[in-house]
Amino acid sequence: MDTREEKASRMFGCSDNERALFEAGIKMGTVYHQFVGTPVDRTNVKALEKAMEASIKVQPFVESVKIKIILDEKERSDTYDYVSLTGDMIDAMVKIRVNRASVTAEMRYDEELGYPLMYVSEVSL
Amino acid sequence: MDTREEKASRMFGCSDNERALFEAGIKMGTVYHQFVGTPVDRTNVKALEKAMEASIKVQPFVESVKIKIILDEKERSDTYDYVSLTGDMIDAMVKIRVNRASVTAEMRYDEELGYPLMYVSEVSL
Amino acid sequence: MDTREEKASRMFGCSDNERALFEAGIKMGTVYHQFVGTPVDRTNVKALEKAMEASIKVQPFVESVKIKIILDEKERSDTYDYVSLTGDMIDAMVKIRVNRASVTAEMRYDEELGYPLMYVSEVSL
Amino acid sequence: MDTREEKASRMFGCSDNERALFEAGIKMGTVYHQFVGTPVDRTNVKALEKAMEASIKVQPFVESVKIKIILDEKERSDTYDYVSLTGDMIDAMVKIRVNRASVTAEMRYDEELGYPLMYVSEVSL
Repeated sequence: MDTREEKASRMFGCSDNERALFEAGIKMGTVYHQFVGTPVDRTNVKALEKAMEASIKVQPFVESVKIKIILDEKERSDTYDYVSLTGDMIDAMVKIRVNRASVTAEMRYDEELGYPLMYVSEVSL
Repeated sequence: MDTREEKASRMFGCSDNERALFEAGIKMGTVYHQFVGTPVDRTNVKALEKAMEASIKVQPFVESVKIKIILDEKERSDTYDYVSLTGDMIDAMVKIRVNRASVTAEMRYDEELGYPLMYVSEVSL
Repeated sequence: MDTREEKASRMFGCSDNERALFEAGIKMGTVYHQFVGTPVDRTNVKALEKAMEASIKVQPFVESVKIKIILDEKERSDTYDYVSLTGDMIDAMVKIRVNRASVTAEMRYDEELGYPLMYVSEVSL
Repeated sequence: MDTREEKASRMFGCSDNERALFEAGIKMGTVYHQFVGTPVDRTNVKALEKAMEASIKVQPFVESVKIKIILDEKERSDTYDYVSLTGDMIDAMVKIRVNRASVTAEMRYDEELGYPLMYVSEVSL
């Protein structure tokens, strides 16, 4: 009897390498769209980074993940002095492995682009 | 010069007690709609509960918050064996204080209703 | 046999008026935390406003809801020229009715506070 | 002077084809993690599908997108009779184009896997 992974991989019309790229994209979309909007200040930034990393690791084919939230860590002056997480604050790195194919993707705000770019930094087979 | 809280409270056409009820609702909506969809299994459930609690505490007027995710904590059998957080899995309690008014709200799946009910369990002035 | 609403209302330790305030808060939390992060430019802003309104109306006790997204509606200059919805862009009004109690809540970026304030603008019984 | 796309593409350590696969994954992650949790019944299902499609189209490199929400469209019996969108209800197809490379990805609940599988259905160069 086939495993679920054997069944799933038959759905893919592409190589392990190509699949790893697709999976890397999924994880980047998850990091961004699941967590943007979360209230954050310096009291919870570490807990949030850790929960984001741990939830991405739960998804299939994640070898490692590193999340850093870029936060202006000044003292809060009043009850309204916190922010909602935006994409521009996220610095992320995810390494995907599908069999022998490996892909590293990163996301970070690019000053020159004025955009939180998600990109593939390494592909190896 | 007025503080931001003095300015904000002038926007409210209601008492501290009424405002505490409104704030309690906001927090419940945040717990649900920010985090539902997050990948979860037994490896990250504690980190996720902690991050949810800490992010709610960042919002204004939260005195205390307790989140429990109800998860079937069996061993994972394969890479697809995890779930996305649903409202039915969330057991939450938030205590709000606005000056001397205090409100406790809770959310939990109600078997009889077949619905993850958010409700006000205590109002005190 | 009791209806679900009869069962649910017994969970509440407060009046209809107080419950309407709590429900108004839930809806505001939903508007913000479900939709912040959504990609938006002038091509989809109306569809997004409409979908936000319609999804809030699905929730219990909503009499009416109005959402306006404040968007700089300039022409896109390239593929990166769009934004993710933030709380500061949302102008929302929700009217809740629980039996004879009615509450109107609003959310909008307050320049003086530098904060997207959610507040109760009207309570009537 | 370089365009933003020229700057962005230099960040990628891979071909157009590989980049299209990564972009397809991002869109699938967005569909899922931005919108799961949204309240839905038959009154708003069309508006939600349309808003999901339109917001994905705003993202870079999307040639076409089709979203179908699988909903049990029975009459509502009471105020609690609606659901929150889950991944299992989403049937999505996204076609990405990066220069001459084109990738089609799909997501749909797979009965045999018991999992809402995102997969690459076509790669063409």
